[in-house]
Amino acid sequence: MKTPDVHISEVGPRDGLQSVKATMPTADKFRWIDALAAAGLREIEVGSFVPAKLLPQMADVAEVVRHALALTAQHPDLTVMALVPNRRGAEAALAAGVRKVTLPVSASEAHSLANVRKTRGQMVAELREVAALRNERAPGVVVEVGLSTAFGCTLQGQVPEDEVIALAVACVDAGVDEVGLSDTTGMANPAQVRRLFTRLRAELGDKAGAAHMHNTRGLGLANCLAAYDVGVRAFDSSLGGLGGCPYAPGASGNVVTEDLVFMFEAMGVSTGVDIHKLIAAREPLTAGLPGEPVYGMTPEAGLPKGWLL
Amino acid sequence: MKTPDVHISEVGPRDGLQSVKATMPTADKFRWIDALAAAGLREIEVGSFVPAKLLPQMADVAEVVRHALALTAQHPDLTVMALVPNRRGAEAALAAGVRKVTLPVSASEAHSLANVRKTRGQMVAELREVAALRNERAPGVVVEVGLSTAFGCTLQGQVPEDEVIALAVACVDAGVDEVGLSDTTGMANPAQVRRLFTRLRAELGDKAGAAHMHNTRGLGLANCLAAYDVGVRAFDSSLGGLGGCPYAPGASGNVVTEDLVFMFEAMGVSTGVDIHKLIAAREPLTAGLPGEPVYGMTPEAGLPKGWLL
Repeated sequence: MKTPDVHISEVGPRDGLQSVKATMPTADKFRWIDALAAAGLREIEVGSFVPAKLLPQMADVAEVVRHALALTAQHPDLTVMALVPNRRGAEAALAAGVRKVTLPVSASEAHSLANVRKTRGQMVAELREVAALRNERAPGVVVEVGLSTAFGCTLQGQVPEDEVIALAVACVDAGVDEVGLSDTTGMANPAQVRRLFTRLRAELGDKAGAAHMHNTRGLGLANCLAAYDVGVRAFDSSLGGLGGCPYAPGASGNVVTEDLVFMFEAMGVSTGVDIHKLIAAREPLTAGLPGEPVYGMTPEAGLPKGWLL
Repeated sequence: MKTPDVHISEVGPRDGLQSVKATMPTADKFRWIDALAAAGLREIEVGSFVPAKLLPQMADVAEVVRHALALTAQHPDLTVMALVPNRRGAEAALAAGVRKVTLPVSASEAHSLANVRKTRGQMVAELREVAALRNERAPGVVVEVGLSTAFGCTLQGQVPEDEVIALAVACVDAGVDEVGLSDTTGMANPAQVRRLFTRLRAELGDKAGAAHMHNTRGLGLANCLAAYDVGVRAFDSSLGGLGGCPYAPGASGNVVTEDLVFMFEAMGVSTGVDIHKLIAAREPLTAGLPGEPVYGMTPEAGLPKGWLL
């Protein structure tokens, strides 16, 4: 099978589920993740290793990881990943057997202090410990960092691009394998996306990671296109646009996986994803979260006449 | 005042109002158009010259044109334009004093026959008459064609790119001043947008016209970005995303002017539009169409912290 032209990392079961009040029952998480894997997604962020009292939605994360790992018998190229906020979370995630961990590190010092009560420097020190832990216990596991607020911060406004790039370099120096950029606040624009990812790729080479874009102001897909134009080939998105702090009805936070896959496939850029099966994967999502709004223009409008994929 | 980098043509008072069931009262149309002009929009499609029994929403079009023309005392660079389906409509529009007329011509033969019961060839003959009429009665008036279904057709599926370009050339040969491309069906993708507008500009030079994109499958802004990337500097959009056949709640048809302006201004591409006044122009729109949904992510989310424009 041909390697897809772009790599889509589905973040819904983590980013989406931790953003909603309801907790999806474990059995529904299993069905949803099964459907995502069946649709061809080959990287799924299945949960967060955080204390259950902070995020009860993620209390079953070890069990969910175990279920997802069992899918690799059928889909050996499936990467089961989880978010870990720190060394302690990484320890639990490695014990559970994940193939990849992702850590959020704020590009904005104000956001870092407000969000995790640590400076960016302290977070880099934490990364060094996580990388050392990985080297010791599970050398095959990939450690990713997503630089949140990389395109702007709701607390401090602009985030200097030089600081974003310097922090990305510091992450790699700490032993991280991939550093992506996240538009946590929906402030990115295509010109900025091209500038920052061009610099990131120049500095980090193949350690430059994914574009994690939000659709807060409607620019999610335009920003993904801009990232693609400058060579980015890995994208985070969420089925039904779940998560990413939507502001209002009709407003999704995360880029909608269905629309992202539609855009790329329509352009002739292969994603490895079967869009019909992807749209079908909305059923277990909505069944497990009754009443929760899901977004996506392509599922609403349907595929165009003459669509052959 | 510096000429804006891009030219945005607001189509809401025509494309939007003719797509909704309710008829906006004439006084509200006046207030809305005033607000659009005050926001800095310098091309407004204020109505359609079609028989009132077909489109009662447009029965007051001559009066609306007169009102909009009065605004040119204050905004001499304002282009008051209207849609005309044929020579008869053009006659009425010229008599009313519009500065620009736009005619829709289907790129798809199937759509042309279904929509206006004329072949594309017959439409080109009609254009020739409209251009002759303009030359005779109002030589300063611009005649624009928007090639609808240029990126795909709900009846016939794909529309061959060679046919689109050949039809554009035929329109210019018939005496048309500008030929734009419309994604009537929301089937366009950025790769196709770049290909077609690159060819259009190569064939027509400065007679290549606007990109009229729809957001049916969420790609509206990405397609505008793609068009901008290959040199397009004129864009149609609609305040609140009104019109363009929305399929579903939360789904706008036309590209939302507010989001389009936000994207360009955030990129440092000037539009000449004051986004605060633009968002304020939603008030007369919603006041004149009570209960009608309006779209737009930027108005919902608000402008980002640190936004200086």
